[in-house]
Amino acid sequence: MTKPRRGRRPAGSGTREAIINAARQQFGEFGYRRTTLRGVARIAGVDPRLVLHYFGSKKQLFLESVELPIDSDTLLAHLFEPGPGSIGERAAEMLVGILEDPTTQRVIVGLIRAAASEPEAAQLVREILTERILTPLAESVGGDHPELRASLMATQVVGLAMGRHIVKLDPLATASRDQVVRAVAPVFEHYLTGSWVDDPS
Amino acid sequence: MTKPRRGRRPAGSGTREAIINAARQQFGEFGYRRTTLRGVARIAGVDPRLVLHYFGSKKQLFLESVELPIDSDTLLAHLFEPGPGSIGERAAEMLVGILEDPTTQRVIVGLIRAAASEPEAAQLVREILTERILTPLAESVGGDHPELRASLMATQVVGLAMGRHIVKLDPLATASRDQVVRAVAPVFEHYLTGSWVDDPS
Repeated sequence: MTKPRRGRRPAGSGTREAIINAARQQFGEFGYRRTTLRGVARIAGVDPRLVLHYFGSKKQLFLESVELPIDSDTLLAHLFEPGPGSIGERAAEMLVGILEDPTTQRVIVGLIRAAASEPEAAQLVREILTERILTPLAESVGGDHPELRASLMATQVVGLAMGRHIVKLDPLATASRDQVVRAVAPVFEHYLTGSWVDDPS
Repeated sequence: MTKPRRGRRPAGSGTREAIINAARQQFGEFGYRRTTLRGVARIAGVDPRLVLHYFGSKKQLFLESVELPIDSDTLLAHLFEPGPGSIGERAAEMLVGILEDPTTQRVIVGLIRAAASEPEAAQLVREILTERILTPLAESVGGDHPELRASLMATQVVGLAMGRHIVKLDPLATASRDQVVRAVAPVFEHYLTGSWVDDPS
């Protein structure tokens, strides 16, 4: 497995990462269904069998490639650090920042593209965005109905990614990061802490 | 052109509408790129040449099939009718209602799916959602920077359609219409009338 092939990257250090990077690029550009393990291998410069060896299946490769290079514990710790700013402002700073960062932006754009047209990918978005990140956030803030709050947060995060980075609506696409944070911070504050939940019980 | 073909719908009354309905279904299911004039013709039960005759091109067929069965003048008149409710509540009632209605929902879901992965369709969404509907709305409300407000409104409309009707995030997907209106009305109010625009001039 470690013998180099013509022009291809040998197995070992860096290979897994190269495959993940290639997968992010391909899923981001072509969505889930039209991305092939062969195409990913070609971009990564590895033998297609190595992709299978490392990841086992396209679904697993997708799941691992959309692991955001952020973890919710770090995010939450940052959100609750002592300092100025409401929880909505901090969440907005963080989420708008995540959407601006080229690596995370590519992952999120890929996820949204795939989720828009492919039910398998939609299921993965539900797991990743709401269950792993936004529901823990809403739970930590301590409001009632954290899942409903998290799913509404998700609508604004996904909508912002679509409007600013995919569809590129003007002038939102070219607005400064500060402007966008100012615009969406009160929305996150409202979804996380507002008393709008209509509880029939 | 009017001679019926085997099992196919003849040209004339109802044909154009049948093609439009078939196009909405196909664009909604397959997106812009993977929808073919031949496939639309098959669903509509007409000769593929009739589709070309009526619409000239796939792009034109798309544009005409995503004409929402609502017009912005009617929407605006309704929004400014005398009666109770803030502008945000009325906009939320209207937009959530449009997303619930099966016909408009199918059109909007088709638009968003296509826009998520296809730059041609993204351009069309910019024209339809923001230029034709949301910017006139923001202008009528009279705030500064109507285009920025409209594009932020669009992020919430698109995010809501994604979360509630495409990705189907729980419990948002099953929340009552009233609950969703209560949740998003203050967001529309904020985007339309809030004083958050950071004007450097």
